Amino acid sequence: MTVHQSTESVHAAQAEEALFRRYREPLPKAAANWNETIAGLVAHRSVRAFRDQPLPPGTLETLVAAAQSAPSSSNIQAWSVVAVEDPVRKARLSQLAGNQRHIEQAPLFLVFVADLARASAIAAQDGVELEGAHYTESFLLATIDATLAAQNALVAAESLGLGTVYIGALRNHPEAVAADLNLPDLAYAIFGLVVGFPDETRPAAVKPRLPQEAVLHRERYDLDQQTGPIQRHDDHAIAFRREQQLPVQGWSELVIDRLRSAEALKGRHTLRSVLNRLGFQLR
Amino acid sequence: MTVHQSTESVHAAQAEEALFRRYREPLPKAAANWNETIAGLVAHRSVRAFRDQPLPPGTLETLVAAAQSAPSSSNIQAWSVVAVEDPVRKARLSQLAGNQRHIEQAPLFLVFVADLARASAIAAQDGVELEGAHYTESFLLATIDATLAAQNALVAAESLGLGTVYIGALRNHPEAVAADLNLPDLAYAIFGLVVGFPDETRPAAVKPRLPQEAVLHRERYDLDQQTGPIQRHDDHAIAFRREQQLPVQGWSELVIDRLRSAEALKGRHTLRSVLNRLGFQLR
Repeated sequence: MTVHQSTESVHAAQAEEALFRRYREPLPKAAANWNETIAGLVAHRSVRAFRDQPLPPGTLETLVAAAQSAPSSSNIQAWSVVAVEDPVRKARLSQLAGNQRHIEQAPLFLVFVADLARASAIAAQDGVELEGAHYTESFLLATIDATLAAQNALVAAESLGLGTVYIGALRNHPEAVAADLNLPDLAYAIFGLVVGFPDETRPAAVKPRLPQEAVLHRERYDLDQQTGPIQRHDDHAIAFRREQQLPVQGWSELVIDRLRSAEALKGRHTLRSVLNRLGFQLR
Repeated sequence: MTVHQSTESVHAAQAEEALFRRYREPLPKAAANWNETIAGLVAHRSVRAFRDQPLPPGTLETLVAAAQSAPSSSNIQAWSVVAVEDPVRKARLSQLAGNQRHIEQAPLFLVFVADLARASAIAAQDGVELEGAHYTESFLLATIDATLAAQNALVAAESLGLGTVYIGALRNHPEAVAADLNLPDLAYAIFGLVVGFPDETRPAAVKPRLPQEAVLHRERYDLDQQTGPIQRHDDHAIAFRREQQLPVQGWSELVIDRLRSAEALKGRHTLRSVLNRLGFQLR
C-alpha cells in the first residue's frame, strides 16, 4: 500500500513537472490522468540535429502502420507517403525547403501527400470521371486524412526514441517537389517529416504553448477570455527565447510577423494557383 | 534469460496479430519495433456506441494538454477547441451532423476549430490588418495545426481507455455550427471528436486498411504498383463488411461513390463559398 501510494505520487509529480514544462504554469487538473503514452505526447519537441545513424530494420514499416491506423474520412484513405532515403534527393528537397540541413542529416524523410490521384485512377478504370475530387471539400478531406496519419507516425517515432520535425516549407515550392517525387495530378506534398536519432549533444527543448484558457472554450467560443493568457504566453515565449539564445521576441509579435502580408508567407501566397496547376480545381 | 525470451516472443506475436487485424495480411517487418504506444495506435477503432458514464475529473484538461503539445507551424497555434457538454447543444450539433446519435450519447464533444481569429484580433490591437490570413496557405496552416492537435487528443483519449470518433459531417452545415458555437470571422469548425466510455455490449471493430504497397512509395510516387494491393483490399473490405453485417461493397466502389459528383459530397460542394462567408478569402 505504502509502495503503491509512493509510486502514485511520483507519477503525479512527473505529470505536473511535464505539464509545467509545456505551459510554464501549473495545470494540476491535467495531471490527474496520466500514462506513458500521454507523457510521450506532452514531452514532444521538434528535433533539428541528428546523429549519423541508420534506423533499426522495420522502422519505416512500423511508422507507416501507425500512420495508416489513424482515422480516415469514410475510409477513403486519400493520402500517400513517399519515403525518401536517397542522399541526393534529400539534399535537393532540403534546398527546396529553404536549406534545412536536418533533412540531409537524418536517415529518413517522409513526405506526406494529399492524394486524390489514387481515387481518380480507380474511377477512371470504371470509366467514371471523379467530379467530386474537384471541390474544396475533397481537397480538405485528403489534407486532413494525410495530416492525421502523419501525426500518428510522429507519435510512433517518438515512442521509439526517435526525433522528428515537420517541414512545412515543402509548400514553398510545391511544383518542384511534385516533379521530384513524380506526383501525378491531384496529389500534392503537404509537408515532410524528418526522422532520425536525436543528437544528444544538441538537445531540443519543449516549446511553451498558450495557457489552456486561450485555446479551450466551453460551449461557445470566447475571444475576450484570451487576452490575459496571451499576455502571459508572450512573457513565457520571451523567457524561452532568452534561454535558447534566440533573438528575443514575444509570441504575439511573431504571429503578426508571420501573417502580416502576402510577402510574409515566403512564396506560399501563390499556393492556390499552384494547387490549380497540380490538378486541384478547388471549386 | 528464458523468461526474457518468452516475453519477447509473446510481444512479437501480439504485434503480428495486431498488424494482421489492421491489414488482414501479414506485415512481419512492422512487428520488429513495438511498444505500448504503438500497440495503441495500431488498435484504433472508431466507437459509435457509448456508456452513460461521465468522464473522470481532469480528462478534458489532459486531452487538451496532449493536443496543444502537437507540433504547430512556426508555433502560431492557429486553432481552438470548443468543449461541448451541454445536452441541448450536443443534440443540435448531432442533428446538424446528419443525426449522429453518438454525439448526444457521449459525455464530451470536442469541436476543433481552424482559428485565424485569434491572430487577427492580436494584430488589430496593434493596428495591423492581417493580410496574410486571407490566403489559402494560411487557411491550410490553421487546418493542419488543428488536425495535428486533434489527433493527439484522440491518441491520449484512447490510451485512457476512452472511445472516440471524428465527425466530419460538421462540414455539412458549417455556418449553423459556427453560429451555435459563437465562432468569430476567420474561424471554422473542421470536425468534431466524440469522447466517452465505449459500450462494450456493442464493440467496434478494427477497419482494414490498404496494403502498405498502395500507400508507401520509395523515392518516387508510383500509381501502377497500387493495382494489385487495391484489389486485395477490395476483398478484405468485402470480408469486413460481411462480418459486420453491413451491405457488401468493395472499397473501390465506396471511394467512387463518395467522390463521384458534387451531389455525393452531401452539401459540402458549397464549402468554398461558405468559407468565404466565414471570413476566409482563400486567395
